[in-house]
Amino acid sequence: MSSKPISFEIEKKLPDSLGRAGVIHTPHGDIQTPAFITVGTKATVKGVTVDHMKKFVGNQAALANTYHLFLQPGSDIIKEAGGLHKFANWNMPTFTDSGGFQVFSLGAAFGKGVTKFAQDAEGATKQAEQDGINVYSKELASQHGKLCVIDEEGVTFTSHIDGSMHRFTPERSIEIQHDIGADIIVAFDECTSPTADYDYQKEAMDRTHRWAKRSIMAHKGNYEALKKQGIYGVVQGGRHLDLRAESARVLTEMDFDGYAIGGSFSKEDLGESLKVVNEILPENKPRHLLGIGEPEDIIAGVLNGCDTFDCVAPTRIGRTGTIYTQTGELNEWGLPTFKKVNLNNAKFGRDHSQLDISESPIGQQYTKAYLHHLFKAKEMLGPQLASMHNLWTIVNYTHQVRKKILEA
Amino acid sequence: MSSKPISFEIEKKLPDSLGRAGVIHTPHGDIQTPAFITVGTKATVKGVTVDHMKKFVGNQAALANTYHLFLQPGSDIIKEAGGLHKFANWNMPTFTDSGGFQVFSLGAAFGKGVTKFAQDAEGATKQAEQDGINVYSKELASQHGKLCVIDEEGVTFTSHIDGSMHRFTPERSIEIQHDIGADIIVAFDECTSPTADYDYQKEAMDRTHRWAKRSIMAHKGNYEALKKQGIYGVVQGGRHLDLRAESARVLTEMDFDGYAIGGSFSKEDLGESLKVVNEILPENKPRHLLGIGEPEDIIAGVLNGCDTFDCVAPTRIGRTGTIYTQTGELNEWGLPTFKKVNLNNAKFGRDHSQLDISESPIGQQYTKAYLHHLFKAKEMLGPQLASMHNLWTIVNYTHQVRKKILEA
Repeated sequence: MSSKPISFEIEKKLPDSLGRAGVIHTPHGDIQTPAFITVGTKATVKGVTVDHMKKFVGNQAALANTYHLFLQPGSDIIKEAGGLHKFANWNMPTFTDSGGFQVFSLGAAFGKGVTKFAQDAEGATKQAEQDGINVYSKELASQHGKLCVIDEEGVTFTSHIDGSMHRFTPERSIEIQHDIGADIIVAFDECTSPTADYDYQKEAMDRTHRWAKRSIMAHKGNYEALKKQGIYGVVQGGRHLDLRAESARVLTEMDFDGYAIGGSFSKEDLGESLKVVNEILPENKPRHLLGIGEPEDIIAGVLNGCDTFDCVAPTRIGRTGTIYTQTGELNEWGLPTFKKVNLNNAKFGRDHSQLDISESPIGQQYTKAYLHHLFKAKEMLGPQLASMHNLWTIVNYTHQVRKKILEA
Repeated sequence: MSSKPISFEIEKKLPDSLGRAGVIHTPHGDIQTPAFITVGTKATVKGVTVDHMKKFVGNQAALANTYHLFLQPGSDIIKEAGGLHKFANWNMPTFTDSGGFQVFSLGAAFGKGVTKFAQDAEGATKQAEQDGINVYSKELASQHGKLCVIDEEGVTFTSHIDGSMHRFTPERSIEIQHDIGADIIVAFDECTSPTADYDYQKEAMDRTHRWAKRSIMAHKGNYEALKKQGIYGVVQGGRHLDLRAESARVLTEMDFDGYAIGGSFSKEDLGESLKVVNEILPENKPRHLLGIGEPEDIIAGVLNGCDTFDCVAPTRIGRTGTIYTQTGELNEWGLPTFKKVNLNNAKFGRDHSQLDISESPIGQQYTKAYLHHLFKAKEMLGPQLASMHNLWTIVNYTHQVRKKILEA
């Protein structure tokens, strides 16, 4: 083990792809990779106790969102509590993201279909596009509700909760993440809209690189944090392979403990983009794919060199009654394939079969008819059980991918 | 053990009161009494998995509501699933109530402050009282939305969910409870309003006694159910001690496996009412106090001869952020006394102390500041944790009462 708080060991590499199995060592325990990290936006994996994470989900780590915790309850309160692990009783490795994605997606109009633009998000966005206005400019901000204004130093944005005005700089994002105290923190980055043009993608990427350098400096300036937290840089560049490659090259030169890969992809080019990036990133450092984690994405991510994943889908779809179930057919790895099933459908009212044919501990204990009843009756236990089943499904699937690599 | 599905053994009796400790044997396990039974109205203890009941709550049994399950998902579906234990994964002793209380409290305007009377519950209730109209009469029903009509044979009522019309008779209530399949079922009874006059209380009680006899007959008519389910009679009589005594005498003559004590009490006369009843009820059968279970009520109930209790308060107040905490002072039994604390109060935002000074396993894991945050952020985990803490508090308190009796 390294003397740094975060270190990575490769256990096995696949001969004909970038896939590898390894271990990330953190001050709160190891993460065996490839691994799916559960998302706990506001320091809670929605509806899931820590006890149930250990028993029914099997996740090795959890990721909280800096933007959300900064606004509520406030990072100062989490610091007072002794950090995220103590505050949320998360006795496992933890991550925080940089806050960048949420500042832009919740504060402004853009990002992966999340649109909240003042009182009239869609209109503002369309208008901006028609006008050829860079939506991150001050002009647009003042025209459309001043929600997200970028300058070289940082970003000024308004809270999605109460509209109050705040400012993140790389230094401030890192300071907040120091207060929150996760094992792995992330350099402040600009997450661009998929609709932004090449020139803007490049401009934003270059800024993200300057912010990456400032983030590292800010991290190194806090000796206490440096002893117990590691920092990842964020590769950006949108859908442009040359920008992705450039981003990977520039960040490789910086002394990060690992790398996160952010921004937008299409399902089709995901694998290729990741390959370009991960062939450049240093092999001996862990790589996290931000916000992506459907089963088919995990295969593409792993084969192209990613080690960890996070995604809100398992809990988001679970809360409204949709679960992952195995189709019974295997993919080319001999691993299960999945389909989504909406338990609200009336046909499940009398379906007394267990949730899934998998070994999901929740799925084996409860039936479709019972969950159908819980969702129809608006009982909290429905979202809880469906979320746990879905999380287990993805966590376990990623763990099976790991086993395949180790056995290959 | 008796050859009957439900039997009761007394382990110890207090010399100077009706208090006793014992064991109720059921086909799904024993209940060591005095015991607090958690309420799971719709076959779910709101927000609490079975696993967490075992680990963090410690309840030995759970009680579901016949009225609710009849309407949703339907007792036929629970029967198809193999009964309540399988449907809800409740691998522990279970109760269902008779449906009587809900028929009257949700179907009509009355009962312990629960008022749902068509579109205008309060108005209808007040009007009825001013007019001196018996709210259970057909006249009122037709005037105010035909929600609950009693006749000698049974009760016709409308669903609180969709207004559809249904009819319970003693035979039908028992049939539904056979379908649901709890270990302990309850004879169909009429739960009167606390405002009803003496004559009406007596009339309703007499009817309840006739329904009790019919309930037993219906139960004995189902040989399969008789082998695996026990039946309790319900003592009624409102706040009139002579009626309570009469009800206990009449029901003692019937071959019930145990007794439930229902209807209305005032906090002041609770102990005296129970004493009158339990001095008459056969000593060798278990007694359940329906719907009452604040800590001070439990002491009054136990000292006056009750063995088991249920109450929605721990989960109901927990869901909105109120928890039981120990005051630090002991009562005359040397047991803790409690106060309710509303975690939504802003002062808890920075209170990093654990939920309570008790040994509550949830209380020891989580802080007031964390739960304050969860409630403020409207996160499901808040209601879950507060409910479990409250349930443990009452379950454990009742168990401590049991220990005091055994040590006395």
